[in-house]
Amino acid sequence: MPIHIGDDLAALQFESTDLVLVGIDQVLDRVHFDLRQHTLEQISRKAVLRNISDCAAMACLPVACVASLALPASSPPLNPRMIFDAMTQVASEYDCVIVGGDTGSWAGPLAISVAIIGASRGITPVRRSGAKPGDKLFVTGPLGGSILGRHFSFTPRITLARELARHFDIHAMLDLSDGLSQDLPRICDMSGVGATINAAAVPIHDDVSKLNSPRLPLDHALHDGEDYELLFVAPSCDDPRVTCIGTIDQNPGVRITIDGQTVSLAQRGWDHAL
Amino acid sequence: MPIHIGDDLAALQFESTDLVLVGIDQVLDRVHFDLRQHTLEQISRKAVLRNISDCAAMACLPVACVASLALPASSPPLNPRMIFDAMTQVASEYDCVIVGGDTGSWAGPLAISVAIIGASRGITPVRRSGAKPGDKLFVTGPLGGSILGRHFSFTPRITLARELARHFDIHAMLDLSDGLSQDLPRICDMSGVGATINAAAVPIHDDVSKLNSPRLPLDHALHDGEDYELLFVAPSCDDPRVTCIGTIDQNPGVRITIDGQTVSLAQRGWDHAL
Repeated sequence: MPIHIGDDLAALQFESTDLVLVGIDQVLDRVHFDLRQHTLEQISRKAVLRNISDCAAMACLPVACVASLALPASSPPLNPRMIFDAMTQVASEYDCVIVGGDTGSWAGPLAISVAIIGASRGITPVRRSGAKPGDKLFVTGPLGGSILGRHFSFTPRITLARELARHFDIHAMLDLSDGLSQDLPRICDMSGVGATINAAAVPIHDDVSKLNSPRLPLDHALHDGEDYELLFVAPSCDDPRVTCIGTIDQNPGVRITIDGQTVSLAQRGWDHAL
Repeated sequence: MPIHIGDDLAALQFESTDLVLVGIDQVLDRVHFDLRQHTLEQISRKAVLRNISDCAAMACLPVACVASLALPASSPPLNPRMIFDAMTQVASEYDCVIVGGDTGSWAGPLAISVAIIGASRGITPVRRSGAKPGDKLFVTGPLGGSILGRHFSFTPRITLARELARHFDIHAMLDLSDGLSQDLPRICDMSGVGATINAAAVPIHDDVSKLNSPRLPLDHALHDGEDYELLFVAPSCDDPRVTCIGTIDQNPGVRITIDGQTVSLAQRGWDHAL
């Protein structure tokens, strides 16, 4: 692959049958991290992993990233090389390369924006819009409590996403970044359907019990966000790594069945207290 | 071209012979614009045009952009739709589309980061590294004084770049963003050569005379930056739209000949007083 570091743009060679996937995602100080508490390595990792997780959401392969850094004019200054090196390291774990960047210094806080280029490489990208009434709803792992550290150290489900897309008829998929209660309506809206979650089936991450939270564990699993597990819709899926948590139906909106009672699920904002 | 707005990533179809070009460039409040003085339309336009100009620098065609917005938590809040609409409008003038984005609100100032995807579409991308001793140095337009407004309203030289690349043996090229005195050394360093500018040949923009500056007009043309004209190197070029401003030689570094005297050219920082 011809890659030009040091030119105005990098050049990438794709296979003739590839669709080229592209997206962008940023991390901002005091929103997605806190520079007073977190290391540049953690922050850089998160900036890249969020984008790689977007590739998983489409069942495509990450290929390359470009990144822009807005560095606070602090003393001592932050080292952009350290950030690019950390991004290069984490990208390499997913066979992805950082091929370009833009660094600026300003009076504002640290902001890192990463754009990712992916390749379909033999798998039709899975969209959000294909869910159909009667389909089932699945997640690839337990949810909640990511604030304890998983929001920096999660594993984007690239391999699993592509295996699922190869072996099952996945109608819709995304990665859970804002939380089930906010992300599921995105699939429903794009697909023109509704959904009902079975509360008892929602897998809750062990981290939730460590939060010492007055809120119910289920509440964390539904609303915390930054799980970066996949949420997908298929007529069926017997892969042992996934959990069925509900069904797709015709009625617009998202509901949840708790102890035999079905109620509307509130979309609660993703609101980390970092 | 299948484009998925609303999915985790957009999908683009390229021609089988295309190289896919990718880059990223940001604009930051009080660095590249001043939100107190400039409109969202101006700022959005600049954010996109800078990236399209990077396509011109490689003689490739712009295809698609993705953009991240870090919006200040101001009252009233800035309207991301207005920014995306303005970006869509300016991109469309270059047959380019905005296919995705990420919007966040934070305590920091406005930052817009745009990543661009281009296509080689029949022309080998022109790099910075091919300049050879004996080549000549050209620019596509007059330089200096962009601060008067051209840094928002310049025309990326896409069409001209591709015509030049088709008809002449362009060895190296870039777009003048930081100014001739900073950008020319980039070509020299990447190519392992030096250069000598003929001061009398450097075209000076009419805006320079409107600056009421105590500095010499040539000084503005060499150092102001944000001209977004192309600087390129070729054995020869008789296109009437370009001006030969110097020669490439073996001696490392950049020199300038003024009134028969050849002196080293200082790399002066791009430092707008917005």
